[in-house]
Order: sequence, then C-alpha cells, then structure tokens
Amino acid sequence: MDNTRFDKGMAMLAKIDGIGGQEVVNCLEGIAPDFGRYLVEFPFGDIYSRPGLDLKSREIATVAALTALGYARPQLKVHIAAALNVGCKKEEVIEIIIQLAVYAGFPAALNGLSAAREVFGNLQDIS
Amino acid sequence: MDNTRFDKGMAMLAKIDGIGGQEVVNCLEGIAPDFGRYLVEFPFGDIYSRPGLDLKSREIATVAALTALGYARPQLKVHIAAALNVGCKKEEVIEIIIQLAVYAGFPAALNGLSAAREVFGNLQDIS
Amino acid sequence: MDNTRFDKGMAMLAKIDGIGGQEVVNCLEGIAPDFGRYLVEFPFGDIYSRPGLDLKSREIATVAALTALGYARPQLKVHIAAALNVGCKKEEVIEIIIQLAVYAGFPAALNGLSAAREVFGNLQDIS
Amino acid sequence: MDNTRFDKGMAMLAKIDGIGGQEVVNCLEGIAPDFGRYLVEFPFGDIYSRPGLDLKSREIATVAALTALGYARPQLKVHIAAALNVGCKKEEVIEIIIQLAVYAGFPAALNGLSAAREVFGNLQDIS
Amino acid sequence: MDNTRFDKGMAMLAKIDGIGGQEVVNCLEGIAPDFGRYLVEFPFGDIYSRPGLDLKSREIATVAALTALGYARPQLKVHIAAALNVGCKKEEVIEIIIQLAVYAGFPAALNGLSAAREVFGNLQDIS
Amino acid sequence: MDNTRFDKGMAMLAKIDGIGGQEVVNCLEGIAPDFGRYLVEFPFGDIYSRPGLDLKSREIATVAALTALGYARPQLKVHIAAALNVGCKKEEVIEIIIQLAVYAGFPAALNGLSAAREVFGNLQDIS
Repeated sequence: MDNTRFDKGMAMLAKIDGIGGQEVVNCLEGIAPDFGRYLVEFPFGDIYSRPGLDLKSREIATVAALTALGYARPQLKVHIAAALNVGCKKEEVIEIIIQLAVYAGFPAALNGLSAAREVFGNLQDIS
Repeated sequence: MDNTRFDKGMAMLAKIDGIGGQEVVNCLEGIAPDFGRYLVEFPFGDIYSRPGLDLKSREIATVAALTALGYARPQLKVHIAAALNVGCKKEEVIEIIIQLAVYAGFPAALNGLSAAREVFGNLQDIS
Repeated sequence: MDNTRFDKGMAMLAKIDGIGGQEVVNCLEGIAPDFGRYLVEFPFGDIYSRPGLDLKSREIATVAALTALGYARPQLKVHIAAALNVGCKKEEVIEIIIQLAVYAGFPAALNGLSAAREVFGNLQDIS
Repeated sequence: MDNTRFDKGMAMLAKIDGIGGQEVVNCLEGIAPDFGRYLVEFPFGDIYSRPGLDLKSREIATVAALTALGYARPQLKVHIAAALNVGCKKEEVIEIIIQLAVYAGFPAALNGLSAAREVFGNLQDIS
Repeated sequence: MDNTRFDKGMAMLAKIDGIGGQEVVNCLEGIAPDFGRYLVEFPFGDIYSRPGLDLKSREIATVAALTALGYARPQLKVHIAAALNVGCKKEEVIEIIIQLAVYAGFPAALNGLSAAREVFGNLQDIS
Repeated sequence: MDNTRFDKGMAMLAKIDGIGGQEVVNCLEGIAPDFGRYLVEFPFGDIYSRPGLDLKSREIATVAALTALGYARPQLKVHIAAALNVGCKKEEVIEIIIQLAVYAGFPAALNGLSAAREVFGNLQDIS
C-alpha cells in the first residue's frame, strides 16, 4: 500500500469533506474496499493536493461538474457541503448552480438547487 | 426589445470573451438571430452580471461544466479563452480540466486538455 | 424587474403547467427566488411564447428531450402533465417515450414510461 | 429474415429520410450489415410505422432528443432533413432547437443550430 | 405478432434475467404493452440471441454501459443480477464497476457500487 | 514519483494499447505532463493490473462504456484497437457496439460502428 498518497489523501479528505468523506470511504468497506482506497489516493491524495489551484476554486469546479452531470445527486450533496467547508458562501454555491442552467439546462439547475436546499437544511438542523 | 439586458449582456460578453463571443452572436445572424439575442440577454445580461460570484469563479464553473458535458468542444474553447481573459492562469485552467478526470472520467479530461492545447496554441500564434 | 416578460411567462406557465409550474416557482422562493423569476421569464416568457411553433409541438419536443436526458424525472413528470394540458393525448405521450428507445436506449424509455405511469395515476386519483 | 418488418421499414425510411436513410444503411454493409437491417426493422418498421403519432410529431421528438444528446450530430443532420421531408417548416426546426437551450443548455442548442445551418445550406446547393 | 422473435426473446430473457426480466415486461402491461413486446423481441430476441459474443461478455458490456450512463439504476440492478446468472462472479461485477471510474468518473462508479450492494444484499436475503 | 505504479502502468499500457497508448502519453507532455503520469498510474498501474477480471473482459467493458458515453471517439478508437490486442475478435467488437443500440440508442451505436470501421481500416492499411 502507498502510505504517502493514502495519508495525504485522508488528510485532504478530512479538510474538504469533514466526516462526510470518511463516511463514503467507510461505506465502501463492505462492497469494494480497494475502491475506497483509490478514492482517497487519486482524487484527494493526487489531485486536490496539487498546488496549482486553491481548494475553493476546486470545489467550484466540482459543484459545477456534478450539477452538469445530472445523475450524481449524492456526490453533489457531499461537495456542496465541501464547498462551504473550504470557504464558499452559500450564496456562491447557489450562483454556481443557477449559472449551470445556461450550460446544462434548467432541469440540471433545478435538481442542483434541490440538492443544495437539502444540504443547507441539514446544516441548520445541526446548528 | 429589452435594451437594458441586451446592452448589459453585450458589455459583459465583450469583457469575458473579447471578440470570440461577438463572433458567436454574428454567426447566429443567418440562422437564428433571436437566439443570438437570447444568448446575450440571458447568460450574459442576466447571469454573468449577477453580483454574488466573481467572473473568475464563474469561468472556473463554466470550464468545469463544459468539460464534464463532453460534447461541447466549441463552447469549451471559447470559455477557456474567456477564463484567461478574466484572470485565470493557463495553469489553473489545466488544473480544472485535470480534476475533471475524477468526476467525468479520463476521456472527458483528455478531450478537454486537447481543447486547451488548441486555444493556447492559437494565443501563441497571435502574440 | 422586467414585468412584461415575467407576466407573459406567468400566463404561459399557467396555461401549460397549471398549478404544477406555479409550485416549482414557489418551491424556489426559499433557496433561489431569482432563479424562479428566470424560469418564468426565459423559458416561458421568451421561448414558449414565440409564435413559430404550436404549444403541443413544443411539449412533444420537451417530453422527448427530458426522456433523452435520463436524469430529469421531476421535470419530465411536470411536462408529461403539461403535454396533456396543451392537447396531447395520453397515447401520444406514450408514443413519444417509446420512440425514445431508438435514440436514447431502452433504459431511458423505460424510466420515461415509469414517470408517465405515475403522472397518469395521479390524474386518475384526482378525477 | 423478417420481410414484412424490413419492407415496411424500407418504405418508411424512404418516406422520412429520402436517400439519406438509404445511405446510412448502405454504409453499414461493410462493417455490420445486420445492424443495417435492425435499423430498418426496429426504428422504421416497428416504431415510426405505429399509428398513434403522426410523422411530423415523431420528427419533432427526434430532433429534440438528438439535440439534447449533444453527441449525435450526423444523426441530427439526417433527422433535420427528415423533419422537413415530413412537413416541418425550417422555422419550426429552428424553434425546436432554440427551445432545447432551456432543457439541455445553450451549447447543445448552439451545436444543433450549427447542424441545421449545414443541412439548410446543402438544400440550397441542390435547388 | 412475430412469434419467433418473441418466443426466442422470452426464452433468452428467462435465461438471463430469471424472474426479474419477466417482471419488467409485466410492469409494462398497464402503460405500454407493445413496448413490453419490443423489449422482448429486439434486445433479447434479436441482439442477445446473436452468436458472435457469449452471454457473459454481453452482460459485462451491459453492466459497463449502464454504469456509464449514470441515470439507469433500475436497469443496472437487473443486469447486475443477470451478469451473476450467466456466470459472472460478484468480484468480476465489482471490477467492472470500479474500472468505470476511469471512463465515466468516480460518481458513476460509486453509484454503480451502491446498486451492486443492493443487488448482492437482496441475494443474501433470499438464500 | 511512484516508480512501481508508473512502471507497472507503462508495462500494462504497452501490453494493451501497443504504441497507441504511448502516443497519448507523449501527446500530453506539452500540455499536462502530470496528467500523462496519472493516466499511466491510475487506470493502467492500479486498475487494469488488478487480478479479478481478465484483460479481454476489461476491454469489453471499456468499449461498451465509451460507446455509451457518445462523445469519446478518440478514446473509443484506442480501445477498439486495444480490445483486438488483448484477444477480442473484430466480430466481438462489432457485437458489443451493436448491443449498445439497446442501452444507449442507435446514434451511439452508429457512431461506435463508424469508429470501428476507421480502426479496422487502418489495421488493413498496415498489413
């Protein structure tokens, strides 16, 4: 096992997703534990750890991409929370998703806003 | 015609895309001139003109979304150039597209990088 | 605010979607009220109000597009109901979705038929 | 071989696509001749031949679906021509594609309009 | 009705999907019975019955395609079960879905693994 | 740099893609060399090197996925050649793509067959 990438990835995952990311990895234990390891190593150990783009910009890109894909609601919810964790304001998340109506159509944006409402609602339940 | 939104949109389009955006609108003259007007009014007059997100972040979102869609190469090229116009560094554009391998797969990222190579190459031809 | 487009859009939305469209707009109040306004103004005030294509044909196009996208079930359900509102017969809606098996594959068509079954079932509950 | 479905399909294909459809089938001869037969039998012999929806409405659905998919330019061009063959006006084809900006985003609509320009241009070359 | 293709398709469907496939066809009775017939005739009577590729390889292709599409969870679940029926090991199904992270991104693979967990869980409930 | 994964990936890439894969990596040198390294390490060093699924089955999955995505023609061509390299017959590749008409629609299959024709044609030019 590649401890450097995995450890770097786990630290990055905790920084970005808080407990949400750890839950995704745990969830994979029963079905595909190696995939949990890849998820830590490649996206978080390799990509998010790269110096050329700040984490807030990275999460803007991810929220935009997941809204555009349309079918990735669970991952979009994780990354809306992640965007808030790394410094996006709720208003900025909403702006990104609204803008996606231009590029991926109104249904993708409407479903993205519905995901954001759920994430924001859960945050209020906690606080 | 709604001059406020159109004028605001044309100013925003010029700011973001330079002559590239104007060419897209001109190109629509012969086939669907009203669509050229909508393109100016809604995405640029309404959305990009909103205050809640800076233009650099908006272009990060757009480059990410267009890379994820996979089939939007002409628009991706316009917005890679636009991202550079509003303050993204070439390295940041590359980082966004690399990151998309995580969310939309390696083919989407490879095709995005190929579009970036073309845009960057054209820029070097001009200067 | 652009009252002409908004008012024209609200009238068109009521004509096409009945109360279903109004509910979507209301739903956006809490998360992105401006997006609710855009939804009324651009798709309904600008596009559906254009003279060059009758409303029944517009809804045929929309049901086809949403079935093809695959991820837009809530919007597909709204527009299946809308198609009936503007003069499509249930049988015609089913034909459109069946035909989509050719262009977007059997899973997209199967999921579209499942959405239609839900919409048709709800209509029977009301009457 | 199932002559009824094939013959019905060939007649329907000729009616809808003119020589364009025949060319697609011929083109498949060298690589997958059975697929050429399926293409005639299932979409045209089975689906387009069904009584519940007129051919013009079927082509409206197809143009919308292919515009939404984004990656199907060759097929979109064939079906833009087919839509004209079965009674759509050029203006109606343009309206369908413009409307798709709402559901699949502006890039899908822009690429659809570019396909329409090519088809309409070729028609003018002939006449 | 084309009894040869239908009968061949029903036999193939039973062989591949067990009762799951029959349920899909039954389910279509109330909304689009002809589509149930097409589903038997074209995919199963025509395609899966072709000699050039063994059934295990066909299901590998189908699981991969449905994972890539992202929006086809019900069909993916049916075909994960089908893959096991025609000789895939659970581990092989997991490998296919993990590999899809490369081509369609991590969200598509994560959602595919979640579908596999459900299918495998249901199998354990039965046995 | 992680020599084990990279070296294992380069060996796997050579085995699967022959010179085609190396060309993709070389091509990335000028625009995103790190991405070339990731492409070797993650898909080929990590995933294709896993023991649970044979290489022929892996390429069947990849050809199916890339055909379904619709926008990944350059990658589909590389992997059609790769499928032949690891033991698929041309007829099997054609069967996979034909089958995709069921899951992703006839346009995706038609474009996939067109890619296969190009790859097979180039092979004949060489021999």
